[in-house]
Amino acid sequence: MNINAIGAYSGTQPLEPMSITRREPGPHDVQIDIAFCGVCHSDIHQVRAEWAGTLYPCVPGHEIVGRVIATGAHVTGFQPGELVGVGCIVDSCKQCDECFDGLENYCDNMIGTYNFPTPDAPGHTLGGYSQQIVVHERYVLRVRHPESQLAAVAPLLCAGITTYSPLRHWNVGPGKKVGIVGIGGLGHMGIKLAHAMGAEVVAFTTSESKREAAKALGADEVVVSRNAEEMQAHAKSFDFILNTVAAPHNLDAFTTLLKRDGTMTLVGAPASPHDAPEVFNLIFKRRAIAGSMIGGILETQEMLDFCAEHGIVADIELIRADQINEAYERMLKGDVKYRFVIDNATLSA
Amino acid sequence: MNINAIGAYSGTQPLEPMSITRREPGPHDVQIDIAFCGVCHSDIHQVRAEWAGTLYPCVPGHEIVGRVIATGAHVTGFQPGELVGVGCIVDSCKQCDECFDGLENYCDNMIGTYNFPTPDAPGHTLGGYSQQIVVHERYVLRVRHPESQLAAVAPLLCAGITTYSPLRHWNVGPGKKVGIVGIGGLGHMGIKLAHAMGAEVVAFTTSESKREAAKALGADEVVVSRNAEEMQAHAKSFDFILNTVAAPHNLDAFTTLLKRDGTMTLVGAPASPHDAPEVFNLIFKRRAIAGSMIGGILETQEMLDFCAEHGIVADIELIRADQINEAYERMLKGDVKYRFVIDNATLSA
Repeated sequence: MNINAIGAYSGTQPLEPMSITRREPGPHDVQIDIAFCGVCHSDIHQVRAEWAGTLYPCVPGHEIVGRVIATGAHVTGFQPGELVGVGCIVDSCKQCDECFDGLENYCDNMIGTYNFPTPDAPGHTLGGYSQQIVVHERYVLRVRHPESQLAAVAPLLCAGITTYSPLRHWNVGPGKKVGIVGIGGLGHMGIKLAHAMGAEVVAFTTSESKREAAKALGADEVVVSRNAEEMQAHAKSFDFILNTVAAPHNLDAFTTLLKRDGTMTLVGAPASPHDAPEVFNLIFKRRAIAGSMIGGILETQEMLDFCAEHGIVADIELIRADQINEAYERMLKGDVKYRFVIDNATLSA
Repeated sequence: MNINAIGAYSGTQPLEPMSITRREPGPHDVQIDIAFCGVCHSDIHQVRAEWAGTLYPCVPGHEIVGRVIATGAHVTGFQPGELVGVGCIVDSCKQCDECFDGLENYCDNMIGTYNFPTPDAPGHTLGGYSQQIVVHERYVLRVRHPESQLAAVAPLLCAGITTYSPLRHWNVGPGKKVGIVGIGGLGHMGIKLAHAMGAEVVAFTTSESKREAAKALGADEVVVSRNAEEMQAHAKSFDFILNTVAAPHNLDAFTTLLKRDGTMTLVGAPASPHDAPEVFNLIFKRRAIAGSMIGGILETQEMLDFCAEHGIVADIELIRADQINEAYERMLKGDVKYRFVIDNATLSA
């Protein structure tokens, strides 16, 4: 079937309306009418060919929520009419250790929601800036939030799970002191989630102006990282730091804030490298610097259920599809609180 | 009492014989006649003022083995005549979380065996290149190896525990594939220990000539790290990599060899930084780069007992005290298999 989408024909052109096709649902497929799609910074990198290997036409979008309109004959978990989500993953090998462990995000053959090879036309996956998507049931998530919150649920599918997964993996909870570096799309979710998990949450920002906003999100304390004295007051005190900043910066300023056996986990990858971290800082307290990428499907469901239970959604600005290029420009200036979400109904014109 | 030692009066002078004093044993002290002392690369850095803050006269040495000659009135754990060891730590605060957890090596007020402040003359600790040492019983280790192996036990007190502690902390054992980077004083112990723990051990060296020697130490396989094809064959396969190389090198070559959730732990701190590690390599498989510094006292005892049980000692070259300057020059050329040990009886002249 043909559906409306917005995407780009090259890395130097703006996004524009286009018509794409979706496969007919196979026996294990769920066909979804997309209601909303969050706008992730990765979308910009990929569509503008700032990351290697962009395939055109490129339709970004991996923070998808909507309603089931049809299911394949062997689908047992979903019914037409149900609210569902699709995140960054639409397929994986289903046979490796990672897939068996429910960590499809680390499968070597993971198929991302856009820009990954597929037998479907045009040969690569096309994302959620579109009216519909057809996805194998294994990669479809159930949304238990009230429908009125649906637009604000969309960013949970990437920003939510990307922060939830490391917070859980590194055992954030009551009695733990946790730092969240950066208060943007990812960081604002990190603050909400770590707070809901019962941890003491300290938010780090370079900008004095974000202090009150970070407290409103759930931070117990906010540190302006340019202020050496404020930083020093937290030396050797954190169990875990989640660093959401992709811009190159000085990691040592944060590793020195970790307790013995503390870990700082990076979820943003800088285009040019961070300064080399000081090895002495790691050795002296058995500290670690780690990375984490999105999360597995089971864990994404767990995160959605956790958020529904705790009344957590993203803070969003809803836009029409034809505002996407303007939204990208605002994101590049950091001018969004904290996630743009496309109202996919505006694709129907 | 006055005893003989070798040490340096400045960073630019060779080591020479000197007379030093040790305190009279207090109620909790153990007075030890030093039989042998291993020569660690740290000794060179400190005595030559390549690290900040060297206090002169400087008597290095923190791989000490010998025999108890007297004990304080409240010492219950040691008797004159027993074989004992002293490693890198001779005191700590005894009250912090680290000390309570038996990780005195991470105590903020740890007192190292040399170059740390002490009320004893000359105001800083003096190490094992000396005839005797007086140490609080908490920091004295029991040696259960046969006395004939005593010289080769000495390096276990630093090189042994520095590799044993991270191997244990990161759960090396049967079914785990472990890499040991660098085949020197630390690395050769890492190979022996990881092998004895039941892991599959792969040794990495830059030098083709070390291939057979590494196998003899217990490596199941040896990879010459300059050979990209050999490296590639091990991509994404290691549970843990212990990196003992202090010289700046490309960490990415090794992080890419880690499985999902694998950690590479650095035990050497480079004088100038490694190249900045590629963050994508960490993110894609939730990998970590960590540091580790020596080990706690209880764990050091556990390591010595493990080595006694498994018949593990260091491979050493025994030297006279007056050969120390020559030994340093050979160490700087990597010309030692794998640890020099001073025969402290040669200090008695």
